[in-house]
Amino acid sequence: MYAIGVDIGATKTNFVLLNLSRLNLDRFKVVREIKVLTPKTKKEIIRILEENIRCLIPGIKQSEISGIGIGVPGPVSPNGDLILNPPNLTCLKNYPLAKIVEKELKTKTVMENDVNCFTLAEARLGAGRGARVVFGITLGTGVGGGLVMNNEIYGGSRGAAGEVGHMTIKFDGPKCSCGSVGCLEEYCSERFFTKKVLKPKEIEDRAREGNKKALEIWKEYGRYLGIGLSNVINLLDPEVIVIGGGIARADKFFLSETKKEVKKRVISPLSKKYVKIRMAQLGDFANAIGAALLL
Amino acid sequence: MYAIGVDIGATKTNFVLLNLSRLNLDRFKVVREIKVLTPKTKKEIIRILEENIRCLIPGIKQSEISGIGIGVPGPVSPNGDLILNPPNLTCLKNYPLAKIVEKELKTKTVMENDVNCFTLAEARLGAGRGARVVFGITLGTGVGGGLVMNNEIYGGSRGAAGEVGHMTIKFDGPKCSCGSVGCLEEYCSERFFTKKVLKPKEIEDRAREGNKKALEIWKEYGRYLGIGLSNVINLLDPEVIVIGGGIARADKFFLSETKKEVKKRVISPLSKKYVKIRMAQLGDFANAIGAALLL
Repeated sequence: MYAIGVDIGATKTNFVLLNLSRLNLDRFKVVREIKVLTPKTKKEIIRILEENIRCLIPGIKQSEISGIGIGVPGPVSPNGDLILNPPNLTCLKNYPLAKIVEKELKTKTVMENDVNCFTLAEARLGAGRGARVVFGITLGTGVGGGLVMNNEIYGGSRGAAGEVGHMTIKFDGPKCSCGSVGCLEEYCSERFFTKKVLKPKEIEDRAREGNKKALEIWKEYGRYLGIGLSNVINLLDPEVIVIGGGIARADKFFLSETKKEVKKRVISPLSKKYVKIRMAQLGDFANAIGAALLL
Repeated sequence: MYAIGVDIGATKTNFVLLNLSRLNLDRFKVVREIKVLTPKTKKEIIRILEENIRCLIPGIKQSEISGIGIGVPGPVSPNGDLILNPPNLTCLKNYPLAKIVEKELKTKTVMENDVNCFTLAEARLGAGRGARVVFGITLGTGVGGGLVMNNEIYGGSRGAAGEVGHMTIKFDGPKCSCGSVGCLEEYCSERFFTKKVLKPKEIEDRAREGNKKALEIWKEYGRYLGIGLSNVINLLDPEVIVIGGGIARADKFFLSETKKEVKKRVISPLSKKYVKIRMAQLGDFANAIGAALLL
């Protein structure tokens, strides 16, 4: 059996065809990958979904496909029907995307928040494999979070769990885009770096050249991330935390500071000793793989 | 069938005999309650446990008792065998209390952190009845937390989940007793009031007299609690939050500010609208009732 996974991002959309009978074979589980630009209208998005899903499955019978999973960049309604309010893809606001795709392609289709998909993929097939409780965090334009317990996404009472980016870490801190103040996202997303005048990639490049100021900025970043993760650990005591997203590439510049901060701020001696903080393993297609695993 | 619940606190120890076949009958579920002072040595603690458990069960056959549950004021090892490090009852550090009671009284005995017991009791029989995900928080000498999902305690990977008191809410805040800085406990335990020179009870009394300064202190307290609860809601999206502990008595002076702060800081529109923040309903014996429910 096969499953189709789609990850609609603000700029790019990824598609994978997953071989569900080969999930334990690292090299063979993903049969085909496609990456395209995300269009700006509903109609165009539906068009590229149809077009690329068809490209994904030549030679495979309809009866061999268990369904389509779609990861979307925003919260999904508790029953999974609507994309509620995607901050970076507003054309899909309150749109019943999964139902429409299901009707057009005559294939069972489900929808889930993309960071939840990321965490599910990493928990089942990546850095969190074998762990009972995995928390995933993505560092990029924003800061997202997801929680997977016993290989299932924990969505909370209303599908809104995992919003680690809007956890207060300094109640008298700077204003956040969400309207609150002192959110983790102000310290751990790209906005942290733009406040330093440069883009994360530029500060990463300078750090690679050994620039002291750049290295110091990354250490500061690492400490803030450690504060956020300590709050997660104190509250949830996960076995593994998986860090993903574009900024995570620079882990060699921040991860050791993050771990030091966790040692300082986690109260349980067992948790601070044994919690595993790992970088994501599945790469760019993690969200799409997780979406396919929803089936 | 009956179950025995014991709640060993830093100053008092509570005992209840719970009628497991009458859990839905508010007036009849607790058959007998006993409250005594907590002694200061292991040997004396074992003695009062034996003595009072015997007083709890006259007329009831051994075969009708499903076991003894003990709530303890500190973290318990992941397998439930040892009390790891009870900050306010150091004589029980690393002590296999449940095993010893089980041997002495020839009755199955289990042990659990007291705030987890509190949350279990409120989730099953009190303010969280019927909810799938309940977070409990206790406000007193310290700030404790517990999480109950589907009527079961969620302990995390190492039994250390729920440590909401040591969540950072101001990373450059005051030093906490745990060694970290800016923990919620600095803002929401009794220490918040002692910094204001008075005990919570005194500030409560003055607030009741209408003293403006005292009322303002309670509002400030309520806002800090709202920051802590917002972090819990953003991360876990619980259906109900239950507030207990000695300070909770003064809810009329702080709860509305807490709810206002939650409206400001929770990101999900659904969660901020529908999350229920309620005061505990089971009173002083909630922890002991929860301990009995472990059986």
